[in-house]
Amino acid sequence: MKVGGKAVAIVSGGMDSTVLAYDLAQCYELTLLSFNYGQRHAKELQYAARTANKLGVPHHVIDLTNVTHLLGGSSLTSGNIDVPDGHYAADNMRITVVPNRNAIMLSVATGVAVSIGANVVATAVHGGDHYIYPDCRPEFVKAMDAAMAVATLGFSAPTFRLFAPYVHWSKADIAAYGSSLGVDFADTWSCYKGGDVHCGSCGTCYERREAFNDAGVPDPTVYLATPDYSDPRKVLSRA
Amino acid sequence: MKVGGKAVAIVSGGMDSTVLAYDLAQCYELTLLSFNYGQRHAKELQYAARTANKLGVPHHVIDLTNVTHLLGGSSLTSGNIDVPDGHYAADNMRITVVPNRNAIMLSVATGVAVSIGANVVATAVHGGDHYIYPDCRPEFVKAMDAAMAVATLGFSAPTFRLFAPYVHWSKADIAAYGSSLGVDFADTWSCYKGGDVHCGSCGTCYERREAFNDAGVPDPTVYLATPDYSDPRKVLSRA
Repeated sequence: MKVGGKAVAIVSGGMDSTVLAYDLAQCYELTLLSFNYGQRHAKELQYAARTANKLGVPHHVIDLTNVTHLLGGSSLTSGNIDVPDGHYAADNMRITVVPNRNAIMLSVATGVAVSIGANVVATAVHGGDHYIYPDCRPEFVKAMDAAMAVATLGFSAPTFRLFAPYVHWSKADIAAYGSSLGVDFADTWSCYKGGDVHCGSCGTCYERREAFNDAGVPDPTVYLATPDYSDPRKVLSRA
Repeated sequence: MKVGGKAVAIVSGGMDSTVLAYDLAQCYELTLLSFNYGQRHAKELQYAARTANKLGVPHHVIDLTNVTHLLGGSSLTSGNIDVPDGHYAADNMRITVVPNRNAIMLSVATGVAVSIGANVVATAVHGGDHYIYPDCRPEFVKAMDAAMAVATLGFSAPTFRLFAPYVHWSKADIAAYGSSLGVDFADTWSCYKGGDVHCGSCGTCYERREAFNDAGVPDPTVYLATPDYSDPRKVLSRA
């Protein structure tokens, strides 16, 4: 048993949750959970599996497509709605929201935690997500922690809690910390479009590039295109 | 549009949630959600469908078996663990708990509510469930309501809330109220064993029979056996 106990970490295969996995593996006996919610970029799940292999920890992929087919309208799951290009901004990124996704994933992860006796459920929500996604905000983590505690009272580990260590961090903070932990960011996937290489022009690709740049961490990513971010309408000198 | 707005009700096909559906149908444009979580008594879902037909409202069955196969150990989902006989009591009914089931179902229902613009998610948890199931208690409903509100802020209807009108009621109260609403209880299923008729000897059959009896409502149920409830070890003059 490790000093922190047992943790269940929700890992998408992106930068933030991959850093979270390396972070927790230091002190917790770790189980990784990924969710297939019909996302266009389901290839991120292969990256989560790669991290599980490197860390030598169990990894479960839970198929939520039966759930999310009812939660229509998001460009992350609907093949017929385009992922918006350009910088993250509420107006064009709202369409990427899957209704209540994080509460659903945290509820399921809490059930798994109860069933294996884990005392922590961890999520890599971070400060950069707050503006657009209500279920990435500190208020949500706090309220959900309270709800999960009473939901599992008498069944979960006595010290059970939701843990969102990066909720006040920027993505650059996470990149810098991950670099210090030895994370190979080539083992992570961000692009919402889910092509062969990162597109370079969607909101997550922008965020990814900016995080490496701001953190002064080398960016190992191959991008299909380098857009002129100063004018999102001026798209994109494709490679 | 009905005066209450739109509601999503979680309906198992049991007595309580069937009464809830009839109750809400008075004032809300209603959508029924049922969950297949691999329960041995999945035939209850046919009863939920019957209620949806009678009320003329949409009914979605969401398959959560991909989720619950990871939440092992409950006799409600594991074919190799027997459902305990006898009166409900913590010691022998704890084994029927699916970890965090209600939080998972409410999170999914909240996502559906956001996607269809419903202002209410309703659940038929009641006072009789409190002792055993933490996720049926008023504290849970309150905490979960707060969590879902912040999770969906800016996306859910402005008056969005979780609604658990029977959380302080007994099952007999629900039976009496349902009777006054004209619910045909032959359209409901309780038995955890999921046989051809109600077994009469499991905890839910006991509860069902007791509720009708206490409410003075005729019980239309065919039971396989009538056990001596005064001594649960003295089982069961099977029919």
